[in-house]
Amino acid sequence: MNLILLAPEALESDRLARVTDPRRLRHLREVHRARPGDRLTLGIMEGGIGQGELLTLDDHEATFALDALDQPPPPALPVHLVLALPRPRMLARTLEHVTALGVKQITLLHTRRVEKSYWMSPELEPEKIHRHLELGLEQARDTRLPAVTLEKGFRPFLEDRLPGLLAGRRGLLAHPGMAAACPRGIETPTLLLVGPEGGFIPWEVEKLLEAGCEGIHLGPRILRVETAVTALLARLF
Amino acid sequence: MNLILLAPEALESDRLARVTDPRRLRHLREVHRARPGDRLTLGIMEGGIGQGELLTLDDHEATFALDALDQPPPPALPVHLVLALPRPRMLARTLEHVTALGVKQITLLHTRRVEKSYWMSPELEPEKIHRHLELGLEQARDTRLPAVTLEKGFRPFLEDRLPGLLAGRRGLLAHPGMAAACPRGIETPTLLLVGPEGGFIPWEVEKLLEAGCEGIHLGPRILRVETAVTALLARLF
Repeated sequence: MNLILLAPEALESDRLARVTDPRRLRHLREVHRARPGDRLTLGIMEGGIGQGELLTLDDHEATFALDALDQPPPPALPVHLVLALPRPRMLARTLEHVTALGVKQITLLHTRRVEKSYWMSPELEPEKIHRHLELGLEQARDTRLPAVTLEKGFRPFLEDRLPGLLAGRRGLLAHPGMAAACPRGIETPTLLLVGPEGGFIPWEVEKLLEAGCEGIHLGPRILRVETAVTALLARLF
Repeated sequence: MNLILLAPEALESDRLARVTDPRRLRHLREVHRARPGDRLTLGIMEGGIGQGELLTLDDHEATFALDALDQPPPPALPVHLVLALPRPRMLARTLEHVTALGVKQITLLHTRRVEKSYWMSPELEPEKIHRHLELGLEQARDTRLPAVTLEKGFRPFLEDRLPGLLAGRRGLLAHPGMAAACPRGIETPTLLLVGPEGGFIPWEVEKLLEAGCEGIHLGPRILRVETAVTALLARLF
């Protein structure tokens, strides 16, 4: 937690914030070992970042005297990430990684090789997803929450959603064996599609290429989804 | 497990292998749901890769009829990674990520902000480390095991080991706030140094720069060690 993220209702005034949620209080006590007088970095959800002084800390709340929270959050990556739904534990970690890296639009997609049971996981409950996004923001000192969309059918996604997503974006389909190496250091708005463990099936690859995506690869090594997504984002942007 | 890694003693002959370790047998049964007749990818530790046919599978062993295991493993990255020892769970995952990405030399280093208790973790036992390296190799279909060295003192590392490691290698110190952005797509032999959560202390940064390392950064976002290491390797190579 490199930033204490304040919901707007945590602000008692421009200059006073009150944090009551148990996870952050525990982190302040046990990891930061914070004491009144310590200066810490805070940010308002969807807003600015700055410093504050810890005034009080007990088991139920922490209060902070705030400086102006007027620094902007770090820039976002110009990417909409479409990720075949990973298994639950991998999903949790991947949401944290990509949020910390600055992704702001995430679509979780069903594909042939996604196990249907993954869609029943409690990790997909909005509060669970929100929590992983918050952890990513707090890690990277960001305040802007990514939007996460669930697409439970591949064909409706392909036919109804993909054309709109590709308008004004370069579509990149990351898949082993594609012809082109992943490009480096691009700044173009991008739609990045990443398959599940085991990959997209050939029919899905064919349809995504027909829809206008370019196939790219990361080399001969087969990577876990969380490793591959981080590597793709770091190489692309 | 995209490759079944065979210790040399698993080879009964050029053409017959016997796998007995419980983890791989369980994976074959429960994840691959393998049956006699299935063709799978196998590799010999430090050797070649090829296909084999599963002949028998029960609770105690699997036997394979091997084709020629004559494909080379994928190329290694030209990097020696020096990583401040992360906390145990992060260490486990980071070893898997970097092994899958193709790192072959890893030094785990003590720095001021590494908690001393981490050096007592069972994750540092050679068999535990070996297991994480194997998982990384099996993920990426590689057979060449990274060498892992433990350096429990920063000053002895700095004075006795670093000059040798920098001979013939470009030293890159990844640290927030350094002047240069992480370079992209280099092919030079590299020594990459990555600090702990909380970073190197200023004195350590100063000494590493004095020793000839170049400071590089990944931008304004503070990343977890496992995310940062993957991002650095993907951007550098």
